[in-house]
Amino acid sequence: MSKKKNEGGITYPLGFRASGLVSGVKKNGKPDLSLIVSDADCVAAGVFTTNQIKAPAVRISSRRVRGSGIRAIVINSGNANACNGEAGERDALLIGEKLSLHLGCDPRKILLASTGVIGRPLDMEKIVSALPRLVDSASREGFEECARGIMTTDTRSKSAEAEGSVSGKKVRVGGIAKGVGMIHPQMATLLVFLTTDAAVEKEALKTILSQVADRTFNALTVDGDTSTNDTALILANGQADNLPVSKNSAGYQELFSLVLSVCESLRDQLVRDGEGVTKIIRIVVGGAKTRNDARKVAQSIARSLLVKTAFFGEDVNWGRIMVAVGNSGVRVYEERIDIFMGEVALVHRGVGLGALQEEKALEVMKKKEITLRVMLGIGSMEAEYWTTDLSVEYVHINAGYKGRT
Amino acid sequence: MSKKKNEGGITYPLGFRASGLVSGVKKNGKPDLSLIVSDADCVAAGVFTTNQIKAPAVRISSRRVRGSGIRAIVINSGNANACNGEAGERDALLIGEKLSLHLGCDPRKILLASTGVIGRPLDMEKIVSALPRLVDSASREGFEECARGIMTTDTRSKSAEAEGSVSGKKVRVGGIAKGVGMIHPQMATLLVFLTTDAAVEKEALKTILSQVADRTFNALTVDGDTSTNDTALILANGQADNLPVSKNSAGYQELFSLVLSVCESLRDQLVRDGEGVTKIIRIVVGGAKTRNDARKVAQSIARSLLVKTAFFGEDVNWGRIMVAVGNSGVRVYEERIDIFMGEVALVHRGVGLGALQEEKALEVMKKKEITLRVMLGIGSMEAEYWTTDLSVEYVHINAGYKGRT
Repeated sequence: MSKKKNEGGITYPLGFRASGLVSGVKKNGKPDLSLIVSDADCVAAGVFTTNQIKAPAVRISSRRVRGSGIRAIVINSGNANACNGEAGERDALLIGEKLSLHLGCDPRKILLASTGVIGRPLDMEKIVSALPRLVDSASREGFEECARGIMTTDTRSKSAEAEGSVSGKKVRVGGIAKGVGMIHPQMATLLVFLTTDAAVEKEALKTILSQVADRTFNALTVDGDTSTNDTALILANGQADNLPVSKNSAGYQELFSLVLSVCESLRDQLVRDGEGVTKIIRIVVGGAKTRNDARKVAQSIARSLLVKTAFFGEDVNWGRIMVAVGNSGVRVYEERIDIFMGEVALVHRGVGLGALQEEKALEVMKKKEITLRVMLGIGSMEAEYWTTDLSVEYVHINAGYKGRT
Repeated sequence: MSKKKNEGGITYPLGFRASGLVSGVKKNGKPDLSLIVSDADCVAAGVFTTNQIKAPAVRISSRRVRGSGIRAIVINSGNANACNGEAGERDALLIGEKLSLHLGCDPRKILLASTGVIGRPLDMEKIVSALPRLVDSASREGFEECARGIMTTDTRSKSAEAEGSVSGKKVRVGGIAKGVGMIHPQMATLLVFLTTDAAVEKEALKTILSQVADRTFNALTVDGDTSTNDTALILANGQADNLPVSKNSAGYQELFSLVLSVCESLRDQLVRDGEGVTKIIRIVVGGAKTRNDARKVAQSIARSLLVKTAFFGEDVNWGRIMVAVGNSGVRVYEERIDIFMGEVALVHRGVGLGALQEEKALEVMKKKEITLRVMLGIGSMEAEYWTTDLSVEYVHINAGYKGRT
């Protein structure tokens, strides 16, 4: 598998075009409307927010993605169109309908996503009148404009692509993302869009997307909130002409690796683009009975405010890590727990290893990217989770967001 | 039920004495060792941390509280004696043993509690050598010293008392508390000690304590962490000579009310004594199918960083409240949700009520104590939860705690 940077992103796979433009929804005049369109019908899959309050775009896309022949994804930023009652539902449907006229396809073949402020009516006039321009400007070269049009408080656009062989044919995967429930938590929305020219069966594509999402986007947190609009979608148009990938075919693992590679790159870009984030912490929990147990413990640590503020303050306070481990809901045994900061052993069998080790651990904590490893001493399963520190800047940003779309 | 302020606290009930002193464990020379002792054997009940990593004091007290004839509680502050391995267990047992010699009782009649830094060995010499003085100074007048000796970063000691009639006899309840997992979250330990001269059966006392704790101490959060040391204990010595209270006796509700009244006072004192806290928010969730559902939704709001920072910033961002409601795990219906800030309606049937209402709500948010009400429109059950804002000061405090015991 080779991977080329800054070349194609979402339009890197064959048969995809993209665009992005300024419709005027954002007061700051930045791009706020994006389109991804495939020349041919696509197999599609999606993972969506677990929040029970879902934006109309989420409800509509999660319904439509079950169907067949998906052709396009339209994304607006600056307004989440969430909690807008029936008007919000009508507006979202209307965007799809109007777009379908310009694309000449059934509206049910169009997926939608939105991100931005909650509870404000969409400026439909601006969006609808920008649609013809959005369709006309869609091109292979439009990947960067497309990535920009989905940004909110992101400081950089996020694109990635990978190519490799699937059942002996060259296959490409591309993707774009915006932060961020976890990075710019004030927006609390994560959007990820992926394309591939692989031929793949729907069930296989669904499994690939959900497993990759669990390992990447669903394994990071800044504040533990899940937005009304979180969405990850993948379109596969089969233009690579490979033998269609099924769950049991040889190509499955190859395609899985390509999608994982793109999503890991997007995750890394998301994590590094955090306002108010001074440190990134990779939490590895091992020695668990099950992967799910490991994940729960890692998540408990990742979400603990006391742990996150300790990282911000570069305070080697392993007691807080123990507290978070004990709060995870997973059965643990204090006397079996080992904790490492980077390569420095801090706790062995539940007991601190003393001041000298703490001094060494402090050197690790001064870095910007830190691996914290907790071994439970119960089984052999492992999971990782990404988190950030909790900084004074985080509070400043989040204490006064609404005014600045 | 009448209630007298600043008179007696933990020794307000008949037959209790108390003391508190400086053993030298705290580097700042503040009181760090307290004793509550009953002249007669007590019926006892306790509620303890749900964290699986428990300090030896918690493990020992939760075992002993099942027995009978409890005589005393000894509390040390400044060192949690948690995560100290077998040495920690030995030290805790030894404190009880030494104290039992001075009190002339079986060591199993002594309960223990600790609060402070995790993972540091107890200075046993200081504690053990202070025990004779601690026992000798125990008196009816020692309630204030006792309340001071359990403090960590509390700025004020917390005492409360109440008296009333139980089955026609005058009965007294007293209590002290320190914060707090929720108020001074860096300590992450809540300790509550209650005394009563009521005669009461063990099962009735257990039920009263657990129900009162659920309504008060277990319904508040700053950071959602549960400490290794959280403990609430109640001793009942029967000196009031009332007809023993059982679950089905007329006196049950009377005693329950007295205990609740003391704990509500202690909770209010805890909430108001928060470093880094600029606002206190009472969250009332109504219209739920069950009380537990209401509680879960209230807790989800109470723990949301985005909600807490919005309160700090006085930002009428009801979208964040909706997000937290949707993340609670309870089945909710967006189109039935109403939100009120104080008396100001902000959201009706899932839709925002506009800029004018938001301006009015902003006036409410400028206050120091705010009631947020969320109606789910499903059933008739209600629960409340207390939280605080998340301030810049919170991060400052928690980013560098360990050094300053």
